[in-house]
Amino acid sequence: MKQEKRAERNQDAYGLLKPCLERASALQTALILFEWDNETLAPREAGKYTAKVQGALSEAYQEIMTGKNIEKLLEQCRQETGLSEAERAIIREAQEEYDRLVCIPPKEYRDYQELVAESARVWAEAKEQQDFHAFAPTLKRIISYQKKFAGYRAKDGQRLYDVMLDDFEKGFTIKKLDEFFGLLKQELVPFLKKVTQSQVEIRDDFLTGDYPEEKQRELAEFLAEYVGFDFKRGVLSESAHPFTTNLHNHDVRLTTHYKKRVDSSVFSVIHEAGHGIYELGVADELTQTLAGQGASMGMHESQSRFFENMIGRNEAFWEPVYEKLQELFPEELGKISREIFVKAVNKVQPGLIRTEADELTYSLHVLVRYELEKMLIEESLDVEELPKLWADKYEEYLGVRPKNPAEGVLQDIHWAQGSFGYFPSYALGSAFAAQMLQFMKKSMDFEELLRKGELEVIRQVLRRHIHRFGKIRDSRQLLRDMTGEDFEPRYYVEYLKEKYGSLYQVR
Amino acid sequence: MKQEKRAERNQDAYGLLKPCLERASALQTALILFEWDNETLAPREAGKYTAKVQGALSEAYQEIMTGKNIEKLLEQCRQETGLSEAERAIIREAQEEYDRLVCIPPKEYRDYQELVAESARVWAEAKEQQDFHAFAPTLKRIISYQKKFAGYRAKDGQRLYDVMLDDFEKGFTIKKLDEFFGLLKQELVPFLKKVTQSQVEIRDDFLTGDYPEEKQRELAEFLAEYVGFDFKRGVLSESAHPFTTNLHNHDVRLTTHYKKRVDSSVFSVIHEAGHGIYELGVADELTQTLAGQGASMGMHESQSRFFENMIGRNEAFWEPVYEKLQELFPEELGKISREIFVKAVNKVQPGLIRTEADELTYSLHVLVRYELEKMLIEESLDVEELPKLWADKYEEYLGVRPKNPAEGVLQDIHWAQGSFGYFPSYALGSAFAAQMLQFMKKSMDFEELLRKGELEVIRQVLRRHIHRFGKIRDSRQLLRDMTGEDFEPRYYVEYLKEKYGSLYQVR
Repeated sequence: MKQEKRAERNQDAYGLLKPCLERASALQTALILFEWDNETLAPREAGKYTAKVQGALSEAYQEIMTGKNIEKLLEQCRQETGLSEAERAIIREAQEEYDRLVCIPPKEYRDYQELVAESARVWAEAKEQQDFHAFAPTLKRIISYQKKFAGYRAKDGQRLYDVMLDDFEKGFTIKKLDEFFGLLKQELVPFLKKVTQSQVEIRDDFLTGDYPEEKQRELAEFLAEYVGFDFKRGVLSESAHPFTTNLHNHDVRLTTHYKKRVDSSVFSVIHEAGHGIYELGVADELTQTLAGQGASMGMHESQSRFFENMIGRNEAFWEPVYEKLQELFPEELGKISREIFVKAVNKVQPGLIRTEADELTYSLHVLVRYELEKMLIEESLDVEELPKLWADKYEEYLGVRPKNPAEGVLQDIHWAQGSFGYFPSYALGSAFAAQMLQFMKKSMDFEELLRKGELEVIRQVLRRHIHRFGKIRDSRQLLRDMTGEDFEPRYYVEYLKEKYGSLYQVR
Repeated sequence: MKQEKRAERNQDAYGLLKPCLERASALQTALILFEWDNETLAPREAGKYTAKVQGALSEAYQEIMTGKNIEKLLEQCRQETGLSEAERAIIREAQEEYDRLVCIPPKEYRDYQELVAESARVWAEAKEQQDFHAFAPTLKRIISYQKKFAGYRAKDGQRLYDVMLDDFEKGFTIKKLDEFFGLLKQELVPFLKKVTQSQVEIRDDFLTGDYPEEKQRELAEFLAEYVGFDFKRGVLSESAHPFTTNLHNHDVRLTTHYKKRVDSSVFSVIHEAGHGIYELGVADELTQTLAGQGASMGMHESQSRFFENMIGRNEAFWEPVYEKLQELFPEELGKISREIFVKAVNKVQPGLIRTEADELTYSLHVLVRYELEKMLIEESLDVEELPKLWADKYEEYLGVRPKNPAEGVLQDIHWAQGSFGYFPSYALGSAFAAQMLQFMKKSMDFEELLRKGELEVIRQVLRRHIHRFGKIRDSRQLLRDMTGEDFEPRYYVEYLKEKYGSLYQVR
């Protein structure tokens, strides 16, 4: 009986669609591996040649996803009954991908992919040389492609930046983000001023020093495993800029970097492990399908920020762990108490580099990028004006001004990768995380779990409500289903004000 | 005028074939990257899932290479005039690939690819457990596929093993290899007996010790660069079994391993650098095409063996370099003279492991594999009998007998990867290398160049006669064009007898 049903299944629209999607997914996985390899290992002069390979694979991917039969099969699939929630999500994702790709001429798409594959190198060199002009022409070309592609896809007068935003966070339009970032600007900019003027002095001198790289590596591996990253299904490597990627839910890859500041690798690895634990938790039936990744960039960031900040920067977390740090670095930390250490890693220090930002100022870094992106796309801001505007906004919101583009507009790779509309996710993620924490604290003694090292309990809640669903539900729905409320950014502002108000004795 | 010609070119058969071949080549490159990644980095539990990806990419590759138009385009291409030598070679390779693939049903090909992707893991575990029976069923399935596939391709009563041999070394049939290995058996087995009975004692105790891994790594990088490997276009990583692979001529990858015996990494890295230098030397117009790799497995091995043995185990090579070793390992080598060191790394010691074999016994290890492969394919030898036959042959030719399958039949990954007909290339390569050395010595003072560290002169000869041609010419033709003679295995026997006769005072 069951056998018969399966045989029938091969004949239906979904059964016919599936092998196409499997091949498309394989090509995507290959592209992910190339990206990983480029960032972590590939030799310097390989880029130009490997870009051709990436271009050809992207083209093959696009051809499959926009193949003659796909539209018809997708149409038929939507009529099909008896599909599981997972299958319906896969079809929906395929439809969106189809819509996204079908309007872009293959030649343009391929040229663009090659441009982007190559641009990471151009960006890296420009950054090294602190020379924005070396990158500007490439950036202009990328923006021009991005606007053109968004124009192809825009529906009924939809704004171009809204098209881009929708790729990263469904339902979070310019209108909604203006509200969100408006609230942050209104509440956090003046609050930060109070914090920086506070009399409370927090020492963090001991975080910088000759922390041996070998020991930092040992600590990074320990921490990743401690917070729940499974090394049987994952690896930890090194790259200039830490990131997480995955081939499927049994191959999840983190990177970090080892610097003079020990907290840099400590929190970057906990952060990336948060991303990794999300991907490891996606259900087996979803992995290697179009619905087999985290729900959205913002939801992803909520998990990494949750691990980094709500867990990792919590004093309770360090109770069972801090001794390990002191053993690894007796000279540097032997005489530093846990209390002083935890205060130091929560010190507020408005700076220039987003990835090194403290928890309070972090979203203001994102605010700058959001406002500039919107101008680049919606107001045709000239790329050449970016460095100055960037500096002005940093001065206004954070009170600091970059001395060169390497610590300013060139610091992030995102635009070089063609990611416009991505940055807001970073701030949204932190806000999602705060809302989740508020929810969790209603039903469990969160700090007590950290104190006992029972992180598995926390992970289980996240897995049950978030991870396992992959892309079946979007971020707003996941948040609603978990917390019983729509997205509420006030929790984030309250969380920050409470935590840092208490630390700095301001309100 | 030139413009016009190019426009016309897009219309001709080769112009139409090219984009198909480019996509096929991109898929192959992706498959190579997955293999590299599996061997060097991928997490333990990824294999089963990643194998699906590899299966889907292989299937896509096969579909392109056997696509409807390909046969017709290839037919038309053969009529085309005005093609360059490179283009003709690409077409010939495409035709061979077409012939090889078109007769294999896609489903079978895909199942086989997945089997092979998975079997490396089964083999590795069986080897770790020293349990041949854990691998035997997988090996049986692989052999059965291999014979079936060879059967599809065999022309007019061609023997199955000949079909396989032809994939690795054109023109080297069972008949020709029986002659070659017959000569080795007849000459080297008795010669080895004399050597092992010689009164000459060579000490090599100092090669084993606590050579720090960090220092070995430094040495490996130094040596690779010293013999001419270009790290701007290549990387050196680690894996259980050293190997070389490449994505194109600007991304060539070596691996080595670091053991208690310092000469293990020293000579494996020089060996792999030889492979790497070959691929780095392929002409730009050939790379990323079907003719853009080394001519054959045997020709490849000739280059790695040439670097490892003719260059690396030559006393003259160490004159400018040995001091560096002494600096890196003052405790271990400070008091060992260069003369004693070079004798030690040329010590003849019949052993069980092919990859650790000395230069003299090396081809006898290959002889064992050749005879067994031939029996597996041509005489339907039962896989279960392999361990005993393997042991018997080792005892007969080398005077040693494995105590378990890990140091016997399970030592090499090749059969687990479906490579039958590959092993003979290892011995042929050494013989090609000896013939090249004999030729080079006629026109240059080889030892003097080594003594002066002028390896570039030697590399140039190899590049001019061998490397740059990629697959344009086959190994026999390259050898003939370079040395003015057909393949002549006597040079190899003479080279070995002269070198080791002198070292051990026998003849």
